[in-house]
Amino acid sequence: MCAKCSGMTPAAPTLRLHPADNVAVLTARAAAGADPLGCGRPLAVAIAAGHKLATQAIPRGAALRKFGQVIGQATADIGLGDHVHSHNCAFSAHDQDYAIGADLAAAQAMVPVCAPRSFDGYRRADGQVGTRNYIALLATVNCSATVIRRAAAEIEAEGSLQGYTNIDGVIALAHGTGCGMAAAGPGFDILDCVLWGYATHPNVGAAVFVGLGCEVMQIARMRAKAGDAGSDRFHALTIQDSGGTRATIDRIKAHLRAILPQVNQARRSPCPVASLRVGLQCGGSDGFSAITANPALGVASDLLVGLGGTAILSETPEIYGAEQLLLRRASSDAVARKLIDQLRWWQDYAAQGGGSMDNNPSPGNKQGGITTILEKSLGAVAKAGATPLMAVYDYAEKVRAPGFVFMDTPGYDPVSATGQIAGGAQIIVFTTGRGSAFGSKPAPTIKLATNDLLFASMTDDMDLNCGDVVSGGVSLSQKGAAILDLIIATASGAPSKSEMLGLGDHEFLPWQIGAVM
Amino acid sequence: MCAKCSGMTPAAPTLRLHPADNVAVLTARAAAGADPLGCGRPLAVAIAAGHKLATQAIPRGAALRKFGQVIGQATADIGLGDHVHSHNCAFSAHDQDYAIGADLAAAQAMVPVCAPRSFDGYRRADGQVGTRNYIALLATVNCSATVIRRAAAEIEAEGSLQGYTNIDGVIALAHGTGCGMAAAGPGFDILDCVLWGYATHPNVGAAVFVGLGCEVMQIARMRAKAGDAGSDRFHALTIQDSGGTRATIDRIKAHLRAILPQVNQARRSPCPVASLRVGLQCGGSDGFSAITANPALGVASDLLVGLGGTAILSETPEIYGAEQLLLRRASSDAVARKLIDQLRWWQDYAAQGGGSMDNNPSPGNKQGGITTILEKSLGAVAKAGATPLMAVYDYAEKVRAPGFVFMDTPGYDPVSATGQIAGGAQIIVFTTGRGSAFGSKPAPTIKLATNDLLFASMTDDMDLNCGDVVSGGVSLSQKGAAILDLIIATASGAPSKSEMLGLGDHEFLPWQIGAVM
Ligand SMILES: [Ca+2]
Ligand SMILES: [Ca+2]
Ligand SMILES: [Ca+2]
Ligand SMILES: [Ca+2]
Ligand SMILES: [Ca+2]
Repeated sequence: MCAKCSGMTPAAPTLRLHPADNVAVLTARAAAGADPLGCGRPLAVAIAAGHKLATQAIPRGAALRKFGQVIGQATADIGLGDHVHSHNCAFSAHDQDYAIGADLAAAQAMVPVCAPRSFDGYRRADGQVGTRNYIALLATVNCSATVIRRAAAEIEAEGSLQGYTNIDGVIALAHGTGCGMAAAGPGFDILDCVLWGYATHPNVGAAVFVGLGCEVMQIARMRAKAGDAGSDRFHALTIQDSGGTRATIDRIKAHLRAILPQVNQARRSPCPVASLRVGLQCGGSDGFSAITANPALGVASDLLVGLGGTAILSETPEIYGAEQLLLRRASSDAVARKLIDQLRWWQDYAAQGGGSMDNNPSPGNKQGGITTILEKSLGAVAKAGATPLMAVYDYAEKVRAPGFVFMDTPGYDPVSATGQIAGGAQIIVFTTGRGSAFGSKPAPTIKLATNDLLFASMTDDMDLNCGDVVSGGVSLSQKGAAILDLIIATASGAPSKSEMLGLGDHEFLPWQIGAVM
Repeated sequence: MCAKCSGMTPAAPTLRLHPADNVAVLTARAAAGADPLGCGRPLAVAIAAGHKLATQAIPRGAALRKFGQVIGQATADIGLGDHVHSHNCAFSAHDQDYAIGADLAAAQAMVPVCAPRSFDGYRRADGQVGTRNYIALLATVNCSATVIRRAAAEIEAEGSLQGYTNIDGVIALAHGTGCGMAAAGPGFDILDCVLWGYATHPNVGAAVFVGLGCEVMQIARMRAKAGDAGSDRFHALTIQDSGGTRATIDRIKAHLRAILPQVNQARRSPCPVASLRVGLQCGGSDGFSAITANPALGVASDLLVGLGGTAILSETPEIYGAEQLLLRRASSDAVARKLIDQLRWWQDYAAQGGGSMDNNPSPGNKQGGITTILEKSLGAVAKAGATPLMAVYDYAEKVRAPGFVFMDTPGYDPVSATGQIAGGAQIIVFTTGRGSAFGSKPAPTIKLATNDLLFASMTDDMDLNCGDVVSGGVSLSQKGAAILDLIIATASGAPSKSEMLGLGDHEFLPWQIGAVM
C-alpha cells in the first residue's frame, strides 16, 4: 500500500528541494517494496536515507537536477521512481573550461524584489553600521595575550562597565602569532589585515593595540594606519614601554576607564538592512545540512541580497570542484579570474604537510547517497542562494560590494569566521548537523540546527531549528524568511544563544600561513 | 691615562668571556684615545659597545676565540688591543663536512663533578618527578576552548579548590587547531604528541580531555593511549555527547570535584636534581644576551648535567649555521645525523610563505660587533654550556636521556617552550634583554634579565638579574651557581615571578605545521 493511496504519512518521506528538480531525496530509509514517492512503483531493494529517486522519467543523456542545479547526466534511461546514483548518473570530468557568466542573467532574475526593511544599528562616522558596540583590545603578538585578557576580565569584575549601558563589553582579541614569522609575505599580510579589520569593524567603538615591543608585527604599523584622525578611536601601548605585566594591565585599564564615556555615547537608530554583511558558515555538517538548513539559509541570503545587503560565502575547500557553478554566475570576468586564481593557490597550499584538495565523493559520501563532486559541493554552496556572484575577496579583505560575494578562507570554522568578521561581517549565520559550540565577537553568531534531534539535545546553543523542513512540512521559503527575521532581530540587539552563553572570547583565530620561525 | 694605571673603573669596560679567549668584548662605547684594556695601546677611533678587542697579539691564520670557541681566523696580523672585526677576521664558508664527535672527549671533560643535590618534588607512579601538581583540562580542538576555560575559571571562582592545598590549580590548555587539518602527517602528529605530552607530564596529577565530537583530532585516540591503566588519571568527554556548552561546563566541573581529593593526595619529598629536565629559552635578546645571561645559564646547564639532570636546548633557527659546534660534541653518529636531518628539513620549511634560514650576520648584527655567523649562533648556544650533546629530539618528543640534549623547535618563545614542556621539562629558564612577559604552566618559567636597566624596569617579571656580570664584576661561575640555586628552589615550590603574576594560561601554543583546511 502506498502512502498516497492510504493518506498516511509515508514511512520514508522524500523531499524535492527545488521546483526544477527531477530527483527527490529520501529523508529516511525506505524498505524493499515501499513506494516512498507514492507513484505506484515500489522499490525492488531497500534504499538508505539521503539517496535520490527520479520524480519523472529521464532519458539517457538528459540532465539530473537537484537544488535546481545540474548535478550530472543520466548514463541510462531512468524510470519514474528509480534509484538515481553512480550506476545511472555521472558527471563529466571536472575540467577548467569555465563558462564564465553563462548563467548571469538567470541569476539576476533570482534577486527577489523586496520592500525596504530596517534594523536598529549603530551608525558610525565612516558610514558603516554596527550591530554591537564593543571596545576591542588587540594583541599584536601572543606575548601580550595574557595582559589584554587580564585587563578585560578585571575591568568587568571591578564593575567599571556598570552604567555604560550602550557598551556590549570589552573583548580581548588574543592570538598565537605576531612573531616567529617572516616580516613580509602572505602570513604577515593576513595578520595585519585581520588586526586592522577588527580595529575598524563597525561593531567596535574603540580599539586599543597592545604589543610586547620587539615583535615582528610592530605596533607602529597600526599607529601609522590610524593616523591623526584616529586619535579618539585607536590607542596603542607596549609591555616593554610600560614596565612589565602588572603595570601594563593597569595602564590598559586606565585607558579603558578614560574612553568608556565616549564609547557609551553610541546609540541605535533605524538603519537599512542594506548595510548588513552576513557571513555564511557551516560546521559539523550531516546528511540533513544540504536539504534543510543550508538551502533555507540560501533563501535568506537571496532575500538579504534583494534588500541590498551582502551575503558572504567562504570555506574554499568546500566549494572546490563546484567552482563552475559560481563562475557561471560571476558578474564579471575579473571576479571570475580572482576565484580561479584562489583555487589554483589552494592546490599548492593544501599539499603542505600532506593535505589534498581532492574532495571527490568519498566512499562514505557515496554510501550516504552523494553521487558526484558537484552534488557534494552544492550542499555547501546552497547557503549562498542563487543570485549573481558580485565580488571575490581575499581572506580578511574589506568587503565593500553588496550582493552575494565570496571570501577565500579555510573551511575550519573559527579561522573562516575570523576572516569574514575582519572583512566587516556584522552577523555570522552558522549551520550545523552534529552540533557546534561556536560563537564570535564583536559580530554575533546565530546557529541553525539541520535536524530536530540536534535542536532538542543542544537547545541552549541552537538559535533556530531547520529540521522541521523535513519533519514538519515547513517550506524552505518559510524557513528562509524566518532566518532573515532572526538576522534582523539579532542585528537590532536581541542576543543570540552563543551570546547568552558568553562564547566568542576564544574563537578569534587569524589564518596562520607560512613557517613558524 | 689608562684605567689600569689610574686604578679607576674604566669608562669603557671590557669582558673576556672565557679563559681561553683571545678577544674581549666592549661593554660600553670607547672613545678615540681610550685604552679600554688598559694595555697602553689607546684606540685610534671610537668603537661601539659589543665590538671585540684583541687581548694578545694574534698572527695571521691563527684562530680567534670567544666563549672559549673558535669564531674565525685572523686574515691579517692582529696586535694587542686591536679592533677585531670583518677587516681582520673571517670564517671559512659554512660547509657540510662535519667533524662529528671530534670534540666529544673535550666536552666530556667539561662535565663538572658535583656532590648530589636534591629538591622537594612530587614523585609520580611512573618514576617521573613533578615540580608542580596541576589538573589539566585539554581541548582536542578550538571548538572546546571556551568550555574548558570557563570550567577552570568557575571552579576556582566558586572556591571549590579551597582546602586542596597540594593542588596548584586547574589549567585550561586551549589552542587554535585540532580540525581543519590533515588527519595524518607531521601537523597531526605534533598536536597528538603535544596533547599526550601535557597529559602525562609529571606536573599534572590528572588530565581531562574535552572535544567537540566531530573534530579531526578524535578524543578516542587519547582514550586508547590512556588504556585501562589510566582510568584514574585520564578522563574524556565531548560537547556533542554532553548536550551543549552549558551542560559540558557543568559536566567538567562535576568531574573536577570528583577527582580533587585524589589529586590532592600528592606530597612533596626530597628527590634528586638528576630527575629535573630544564628547558632553555631566550627571547627579546639584546647585545648583553651573549655575554651575561646566556653564558651564565650555560654554566648552570653544565652544573645541572654534572648532577645527572637534563638541559634542553631548542630554537633550531637560532643554532642554524653553528651546528658544527654541536655536531663536534655529539655523543654518537646517530645523534648527529638526526640533527643534520632536522636542519635540512628546516631549509624547505622556512621557504613556505617566503621565510629563509639565512641568518648570516645582518648589517645590524655587524654594526653591533658580530663578525661571523658562528659568533652569532654561539650567543644562543651559550645557554647550553659545554658538555656532550647526548640526544636530539623532535618537537614535543618525550625527553629521556640525561645530560645536554637538543629538541627541534621554532625560535618563537611560546611554541618552543610548549614543545619542551610536552617533552617533559619541569622548569623553563628564559633569558631576555628587551623584556618578556612570558610564563608557562604546568611547568613554571624563570626569567633572567641580561642587563641592569631591564631588571629595574620590569622588576615584577624578572626573577634574576645577570646584568651585574658586566656592571658589578660578578663572575659567570657565580651567576651560574645562583641560577642553579634558583632552579632548585623553584622546582621545590618557590613561586617564580611569572607564577606570581599568574602567567601561563595563554602561552600554550602547539607548533602548527601544514595547511589549515
Ligand atoms: Ca563554516
Ligand atoms: Ca562546512
Ligand atoms: Ca566549516
Ligand atoms: Ca632565542
Ligand atoms: Ca625564542
